[in-house]
Amino acid sequence: MSMDPIQIGYMPPADKITADNVINLVMYGQTKAYDFVVSPINSPNYSRVLFPGESSQSPALVAWRAGQEAFKPEDLVLRTADRTDYIVGTLSDWQDFDSPDARVRLHSELALKQQFNWAAHLGLGGVMLPYPPSTQPLTNYGRVLTGSLSMLAYTSCWFKVPCMDEILEADVSEDLQGMESWERWNSLRNMAGSESKLGIALELSGAVPSDQVLDRWFAEPVKAIILSEDIFLTNSKGYPVLSKRHQHVVRKFMKYKPAFILTSSSLPKLVLDEFSDDSLEQSLASPHADYIRYLHRTQEAPGVIDQFATGYQDYLQAPLQPLQDNLESSTYETFEKDPIKYQQYELAVERALLDRPVPTDGKPDVTVIMVVGAGRGPLVNCSLRAADKAGRNVRVYAVEKNPNAFVTIQNMKANLWGDRVTIVFSDMRTWKAPEKADILVSELLGSFGDNELSPECLDGAQKFLKPDGISIPADYTAFVAPMASNKLHADVSAFKDLAHFETSYVVMFKAISLLAQPKPIWTFEHPNWTDIPMGQDPLSNHHNIRSGSIEFTSETSGMLHGVAGYFESVLYKDVMLSINPVTHSPGMFSWFPIYFPVKTPLYIPTGAKVMLDFWRLTDVRKVWYEWRVRCSVDGVGEISSTALHNVGGRSSSIGLY
Amino acid sequence: MSMDPIQIGYMPPADKITADNVINLVMYGQTKAYDFVVSPINSPNYSRVLFPGESSQSPALVAWRAGQEAFKPEDLVLRTADRTDYIVGTLSDWQDFDSPDARVRLHSELALKQQFNWAAHLGLGGVMLPYPPSTQPLTNYGRVLTGSLSMLAYTSCWFKVPCMDEILEADVSEDLQGMESWERWNSLRNMAGSESKLGIALELSGAVPSDQVLDRWFAEPVKAIILSEDIFLTNSKGYPVLSKRHQHVVRKFMKYKPAFILTSSSLPKLVLDEFSDDSLEQSLASPHADYIRYLHRTQEAPGVIDQFATGYQDYLQAPLQPLQDNLESSTYETFEKDPIKYQQYELAVERALLDRPVPTDGKPDVTVIMVVGAGRGPLVNCSLRAADKAGRNVRVYAVEKNPNAFVTIQNMKANLWGDRVTIVFSDMRTWKAPEKADILVSELLGSFGDNELSPECLDGAQKFLKPDGISIPADYTAFVAPMASNKLHADVSAFKDLAHFETSYVVMFKAISLLAQPKPIWTFEHPNWTDIPMGQDPLSNHHNIRSGSIEFTSETSGMLHGVAGYFESVLYKDVMLSINPVTHSPGMFSWFPIYFPVKTPLYIPTGAKVMLDFWRLTDVRKVWYEWRVRCSVDGVGEISSTALHNVGGRSSSIGLY
Repeated sequence: MSMDPIQIGYMPPADKITADNVINLVMYGQTKAYDFVVSPINSPNYSRVLFPGESSQSPALVAWRAGQEAFKPEDLVLRTADRTDYIVGTLSDWQDFDSPDARVRLHSELALKQQFNWAAHLGLGGVMLPYPPSTQPLTNYGRVLTGSLSMLAYTSCWFKVPCMDEILEADVSEDLQGMESWERWNSLRNMAGSESKLGIALELSGAVPSDQVLDRWFAEPVKAIILSEDIFLTNSKGYPVLSKRHQHVVRKFMKYKPAFILTSSSLPKLVLDEFSDDSLEQSLASPHADYIRYLHRTQEAPGVIDQFATGYQDYLQAPLQPLQDNLESSTYETFEKDPIKYQQYELAVERALLDRPVPTDGKPDVTVIMVVGAGRGPLVNCSLRAADKAGRNVRVYAVEKNPNAFVTIQNMKANLWGDRVTIVFSDMRTWKAPEKADILVSELLGSFGDNELSPECLDGAQKFLKPDGISIPADYTAFVAPMASNKLHADVSAFKDLAHFETSYVVMFKAISLLAQPKPIWTFEHPNWTDIPMGQDPLSNHHNIRSGSIEFTSETSGMLHGVAGYFESVLYKDVMLSINPVTHSPGMFSWFPIYFPVKTPLYIPTGAKVMLDFWRLTDVRKVWYEWRVRCSVDGVGEISSTALHNVGGRSSSIGLY
Repeated sequence: MSMDPIQIGYMPPADKITADNVINLVMYGQTKAYDFVVSPINSPNYSRVLFPGESSQSPALVAWRAGQEAFKPEDLVLRTADRTDYIVGTLSDWQDFDSPDARVRLHSELALKQQFNWAAHLGLGGVMLPYPPSTQPLTNYGRVLTGSLSMLAYTSCWFKVPCMDEILEADVSEDLQGMESWERWNSLRNMAGSESKLGIALELSGAVPSDQVLDRWFAEPVKAIILSEDIFLTNSKGYPVLSKRHQHVVRKFMKYKPAFILTSSSLPKLVLDEFSDDSLEQSLASPHADYIRYLHRTQEAPGVIDQFATGYQDYLQAPLQPLQDNLESSTYETFEKDPIKYQQYELAVERALLDRPVPTDGKPDVTVIMVVGAGRGPLVNCSLRAADKAGRNVRVYAVEKNPNAFVTIQNMKANLWGDRVTIVFSDMRTWKAPEKADILVSELLGSFGDNELSPECLDGAQKFLKPDGISIPADYTAFVAPMASNKLHADVSAFKDLAHFETSYVVMFKAISLLAQPKPIWTFEHPNWTDIPMGQDPLSNHHNIRSGSIEFTSETSGMLHGVAGYFESVLYKDVMLSINPVTHSPGMFSWFPIYFPVKTPLYIPTGAKVMLDFWRLTDVRKVWYEWRVRCSVDGVGEISSTALHNVGGRSSSIGLY
């Protein structure tokens, strides 16, 4: 398969493909501009290896069982390694791994191994495995697969799964559709372990799944989408198109860049016949594939966040350690480009300025604004613009501890700001301010609100805030939600140590699914005159301890691989910043969510209660989070729980100095 | 505490012990021959550190929070390190870790840390933690404990837990008693992780728990049993005794060697008063402690199995690899001492001989017995004795592959057996027998029946068995049961790798609890004329593949730490060997059960279905087991499952050569 951004394959009815016409199928696929074709590996003749009715001592059976008998030519559809990189092979469907008959089980297993071996030998583009009828258990199938995947080496392996189970489609409750097939896949995947190379070929049918059913698949390794040509409609010009609802589903999946496989219920004439010169007239690209390509081309242009996020999706980043490390220039530059964040800050400062009473006692109208953690100066610019808009006089202080950023600030003062701005090279917590501020402006928030130590920094800065002074931001609230993400959990597992399971990561989420909507867990407000004596440093950091036990009801069943964290912040009155998906500030890209993994994923049944226990803890040197997850079911009680993660900050913490 | 086999401590009412009389308590304990006493660490005065009503900026509060204020003398009952090895300290009970008041939570945590620090400094014999009212969550308590245990270094830590919850004792359903307190302990332990050093001080009350409730505690780290003097009765001679049912409970626990702690509701006069010469008259050992010591002395003499098992209890042994390694002489010697096993073999051979028709055609009445895997000869002796008893002539062959054991056999033949026995140095699978056998006798069974490759060995040996010949054993069946054992799981975890979780162990079970009674999973029968051509070697080993998915209903909730495996074998007709606890051959000690661990323990709710999936698999070089566990609840579906263990025998297998 080429590196084309969208891969489209063609799968004819398996029973129509033979060793004689498979080369026609390849030519047809190429003529019609498909990226690959799907063909059975074996002919129906291969079902002979069930040896029906034969004695278990028959020489042929014995030889085959002992691996001493190769495929006969008539067993195979794919007989040579010719163009096999263009072919995805499917397994025989008479194989029955969970048959009550021990011989059928054994022979199915031996046949699978022979087929995998052959697929690897041929170098097939991929192998696709059949989905057994939902009345059958997957116990032995799962065991056989788990033990055989390594035989495929570089050949990818797709398990064909219906997005919704046929038997359930008749069900009255639409919400339940698609449960069964996901549950079966999940059971198989849990058996194989989350690091397994097994992917999914998801079969969409005429019935359109609800978003709830779809969401869950997004957290799974969906490598291909199977679409029957039969579900296409014909538009007024005679071209095949999808219904609005199918378009919606296909477009949603396109974000995850699966291959598409188009199936037809009859074999195209060009595959049946020999190719002749006449055939060339028919050699136009498949209109169905063209339509999928059209949908792909005309996807909504990625928003500014998506553009920014390219390359970051599902990539685990360690959160910043802003008090220990100095940011690099490029980091400042990236964040300064956020089109929304500084607009909101400017608005917040403007509103705050307008709310400050104009002195009536004849004193000069000057509002003192201190920007603490000024970086390269964007909030100073915001403050000056806001003052201009509000028509108020300001005296701005820009306080910054990073010597590199301070170089830029010095240039800004010399070339742009002049006397309106006083620049100060200091940690805000230790600065001896020459006067007190009316407004304290800062941008110290992390993805979880307080995780870059905004509370501790502002506690130190508020001693130079007037008693009626304003902090922008005024508050921030951390949000949590239980989430599924096979990929992120596998990536953390790959480190093979406990410490990485006890660390939080900043991640642009992609292949994830929330099991419930985020809920607030704790809030910090500034200034904090209750815990910190006016004009003094905080007496200890105990007032910045937080804890919360938040209960969620899972709307669907799913695997819990960790906790998604977000924040909402009130900058000033109704001027907000939010990365909570429910209230996300449109277009703001400065923060990705945060991911708290759990070491052992928990299965969450539909309607179960998920309890997230979170702590923000502190000692004199550092701040850290601890967390654990519990799941309970009404009438049963607690059914599972994780250990406490990151006890005493043993694996991850944010340094106070 | 000394190394005495039973440790008995005394715990007076905590509110009666002060810094002034604690030395009296120590002297009282010593006079009354207790091994330790239990005393509060702190006086009620220490509750001042909640700083009720005080401003959070009060200097005293601030200093204490910052760890800058030591205990005041009046805070402490235990003020010096005098005799502290004789004292177990209890924590203040005003501490409330899950209070809705953040200050109470914080101050309780800081107080616990100050107390742990002090306990470690004093070198207390132990620390006992209070059990919070069952209306309170244990979320923050668990977090605080988990994070603080390491402060105690060598001081042991016991969490006081009632065996049955008070509120549930009033419940109509007696079966449910004791659920709640175990559930709460389990939730706390799961939070702390199974490697935690936290032990249990289990409080028995007047109500006697059912065996079902007790059983579950046996799989937990119960380090002490707390018995109130109030639950003792007075016998006709005026001495304190326990009721029959309490005796039963206490004796059951004694097997696990916990300490005992006797509590009284009033302070003995000797502790209240200064010691005087008069006091010496009263200095007789406590009659309550004496009674417990009496129960300890008069425990049933350990049976032959227990005697044999000393030192093996809960010790993980790798199963034998009989085809790869030769047994050592001492191993033979140990197993030959089994009083039951060879008695059963002798009986089986005798019955089989009696069932053989006496030739009526004038041919001589000689039955050919072949002992395959003769070892040092015990089954040869059994066969000869059986022949004498049955009054039948026999010709015995003793086939052995171990050159060291063969030396012994040679001596046996020279000195004892003479012409009745032909000895053969060979692997039974490759021996060319000079004639065919009437009876094939072997002792190749492992703890799981087939796990020492009895099926493969006998398959090879049956080619020299007559068509109507008999195999002793005739069959063997593997049994499995879901089990809890905190200790065994922690011991496997300690290896810190996957391979040890994917290995089975032969273990003399002690601190374990079965979640349901064992069930049969598969059977092997000999001879096997169906799969193996008469007089030939087996064509492959596929016929020795087995699999089973066995469902259990858990009678109580519990943690599943793995699977217990046993076997039952029919030697001949109704002559059996069994290590299945339900049918265990009385007095037979040759086999301990087998333990299949699971990597991630599963919580099993009461009434849940546990499904054990097991496979016995084979390739040309080896035999291995794969397993996984699933748990489901009616109306909810599958709630948890483990990964497939030992895929392809990657971690453990039994070599065929």
